Amino acid sequence: MTDTGDEFLVRPPQDELPDDIYAEDGSVRSDFLVLVGAAIADRDTLFLRQRVARLHESELGDLIEAIQPEQRLALVRLLGDDFDLTALTEVDEAIRLQIVDQMPNEQIAAAIGELDSDDAVYILEDLDHEDREEILAKLPFTERVRLRRALDYPESSAGRRMQTEFVAVPPFWTVGQTIDYMRDEDDLPESFTQIFVIDPTFKLLGTVDLDRILRTKRQMKIETIMRETSHAVPAEMDQEEAAQLFEQYDLLSAAVVDENDRLVGVLTIDDVVDVIQEEAEEDLLRLGGVGDEELSDSVVETSRSRVPWLAVNLVTAFISASVISLFEGTIEQVVALAILMPIVAGMGGNAGSQTMTVTVRALATRNLDIHNAWRVARREAGVGLINGALFGTLVGVVAAIWFRDVSIGGIITTAMLINMFAAAMAGITIPVLLHRSGTDPAVSSAVFVTAITDTTGFFSFLGLATWWFMSS
Amino acid sequence: MTDTGDEFLVRPPQDELPDDIYAEDGSVRSDFLVLVGAAIADRDTLFLRQRVARLHESELGDLIEAIQPEQRLALVRLLGDDFDLTALTEVDEAIRLQIVDQMPNEQIAAAIGELDSDDAVYILEDLDHEDREEILAKLPFTERVRLRRALDYPESSAGRRMQTEFVAVPPFWTVGQTIDYMRDEDDLPESFTQIFVIDPTFKLLGTVDLDRILRTKRQMKIETIMRETSHAVPAEMDQEEAAQLFEQYDLLSAAVVDENDRLVGVLTIDDVVDVIQEEAEEDLLRLGGVGDEELSDSVVETSRSRVPWLAVNLVTAFISASVISLFEGTIEQVVALAILMPIVAGMGGNAGSQTMTVTVRALATRNLDIHNAWRVARREAGVGLINGALFGTLVGVVAAIWFRDVSIGGIITTAMLINMFAAAMAGITIPVLLHRSGTDPAVSSAVFVTAITDTTGFFSFLGLATWWFMSS
Repeated sequence: MTDTGDEFLVRPPQDELPDDIYAEDGSVRSDFLVLVGAAIADRDTLFLRQRVARLHESELGDLIEAIQPEQRLALVRLLGDDFDLTALTEVDEAIRLQIVDQMPNEQIAAAIGELDSDDAVYILEDLDHEDREEILAKLPFTERVRLRRALDYPESSAGRRMQTEFVAVPPFWTVGQTIDYMRDEDDLPESFTQIFVIDPTFKLLGTVDLDRILRTKRQMKIETIMRETSHAVPAEMDQEEAAQLFEQYDLLSAAVVDENDRLVGVLTIDDVVDVIQEEAEEDLLRLGGVGDEELSDSVVETSRSRVPWLAVNLVTAFISASVISLFEGTIEQVVALAILMPIVAGMGGNAGSQTMTVTVRALATRNLDIHNAWRVARREAGVGLINGALFGTLVGVVAAIWFRDVSIGGIITTAMLINMFAAAMAGITIPVLLHRSGTDPAVSSAVFVTAITDTTGFFSFLGLATWWFMSS
Repeated sequence: MTDTGDEFLVRPPQDELPDDIYAEDGSVRSDFLVLVGAAIADRDTLFLRQRVARLHESELGDLIEAIQPEQRLALVRLLGDDFDLTALTEVDEAIRLQIVDQMPNEQIAAAIGELDSDDAVYILEDLDHEDREEILAKLPFTERVRLRRALDYPESSAGRRMQTEFVAVPPFWTVGQTIDYMRDEDDLPESFTQIFVIDPTFKLLGTVDLDRILRTKRQMKIETIMRETSHAVPAEMDQEEAAQLFEQYDLLSAAVVDENDRLVGVLTIDDVVDVIQEEAEEDLLRLGGVGDEELSDSVVETSRSRVPWLAVNLVTAFISASVISLFEGTIEQVVALAILMPIVAGMGGNAGSQTMTVTVRALATRNLDIHNAWRVARREAGVGLINGALFGTLVGVVAAIWFRDVSIGGIITTAMLINMFAAAMAGITIPVLLHRSGTDPAVSSAVFVTAITDTTGFFSFLGLATWWFMSS
């Protein structure tokens, strides 16, 4: 029997398959996709359970993203109870909704019960109110109360991202008692790196890292080894702020407390890593003029989400055009100006975007503050003048030779010096002012900086030329 | 005694100072800086030891960045042995070098001995060969060997970032033996979340998370609870690739192994978080045309580092200018073209940068691969056509009214449709091709995309106009 041309596709037994589902470039291997696709078509649940259900949640997520849209739901149905719902926390929002919307609420409820509460919340928060209530109603009481409490906190808050399963002990317990408790208790979180110390009202008293427990003698009291400065995170705190705490103090997990300092959950570094990624991605996309979009969005969704930025840029483009129109008469007489003016504006735009990028990033990482803002502004001014002089002279020489006119060279050199200095100043001032006024500088800095470098570029170049050619 | 006007600045006692050294906006509080500055001037080592030496390493790092450059070394000298060298891993490279270069090698060697090996390597790797050897020579033998081994691995490899302190036990030990060992051994790492299982040749057999040890009975053998699939990281692996493993499998730490699968160290999530931040920062800066620069760089260093990108852009700007010069005659007769042409080029540039940003980010996060590249390309083509038609029509109507000429309106509408479609295609094709050829698309995509949208914009608009006005 050969592999090709047969009516029945023969799938190799488990142990002949390679361990790694990824190809060199990080995408899911094509041969693996073919096998999975054929298994779905053949409803070969044995293969799917042995080979797909055992994948790590993130691998299963990548697989779901890589197969054809119409295969996704079929795969979930064929896996049945063996489908690990956590995989859905690893896929694009659009794909997640597509799958969850078509799964029966009973199946979701059964699967949700198996998840850590933070993963459960991640999936529940996207559902519409009705579906969510129906699923919650099918859950055991304590589970339901926990999830509802997390869902009550605002979107993007620490309370939403927290896990409500944790280990908490009273301060008067000994290390030995604590270890015995962990050995006997079945209902511990799936994994944890620290335990919390609380009083009878659940007020947080301190934390103890697991390695601390392991190196301490059994008879020692927990209160003698707990740390009090535990960087507890208020549940209402924005997830980005919480992520900064984790970064600054190298935390692995942090207690989440309610307004009365009572322990309600734990925030873990793996969720924080996701937050850090999301925030960095947001800044990058916003600087490029893109909002919240995902690769799986449709043409119409994508077009619509990109319109606002293009519209704002259109307004500034018309402002630049009207600046040019002021000098219509000059351009009619010296067409070289029309040829050269995009160079002045464009180089200013590039210099401005360099300064702006550095500024936006430094603000996001809190590296730029009142203590060094002046020094950085002075530096950028210097850089603008140096590079303006350098490139201005270069362009001036080329322009003078090209159009056999020294005055054109002098005019463009001066205009570029002015514009690249203006670019540097706009590149630092605009993000800082936006930041001070409470706006995210990544969103709108680029539009303003380009508006300034375009208008300054056209105005200085054409203005100088008009003054020179029209008065001489 | 009042606070103002006195000859001697009176510093409040320890317990009257606020706990938090940060102001609302995340910068170090100005009043705290004043106190520290005065204490440095007065050589008040008591205050500095009580109040500054006790800060968390990252707080001390922020403080060092916030005070005047000339105060930094004075602070380090006054703190003496109480200065935690780890703080230097939290400051800009330029500031770190400035301080380390002026510290006596004896003091550095003494302080290095106190650090975790990953922090020690972080500081040693920036020093010149001679200083580094002198410091290493002053360290105890085992310490020296460990650090040298880490320093022998390539820059940005997992081996450079790893910590060489770890807990490793043989597989036949029981949980009880393991706990007793940790209680009795003094030389454990400062903190750890998992222990490793090795054979007598240090070959890695598996890992056990601490929570697993705590919930298992004393008499159980380690080999029965260890996990074999431990995502061990080869020491030569690039740190970025290692970070992707951490993200994908939600790891807290991972074993680092040499070419013979022998355990040489452990990579921890806090270092990985720094790597993730650095990589995201790099992409963002590169897209903005900025290389490796830091806020503390000088004017000249900064100017120089920004020249290459500006130079490449200058070349493309001259190419665009020469495209315009092809149509000199047309512009002379219809000056409206010179006024409107930046709109066509600029809107194309914006649309192109939107697509390019999304593509670069999707490539960096491995979300764009052969399985969805075609779908995404088709989507971008659709978005380019829709937004091209939308904004083309809008601009066409305004232009027709402005210059009272319907044909100008028709020409600019067509040119914008062409250019925004070209922008979408360039925005996805160029990063993908650069990525395939092994180049980082973040570095050079922007230049190529702008070159294409500028030349296509000018050529289509002025070409159509020439064909229309010159032939009619």
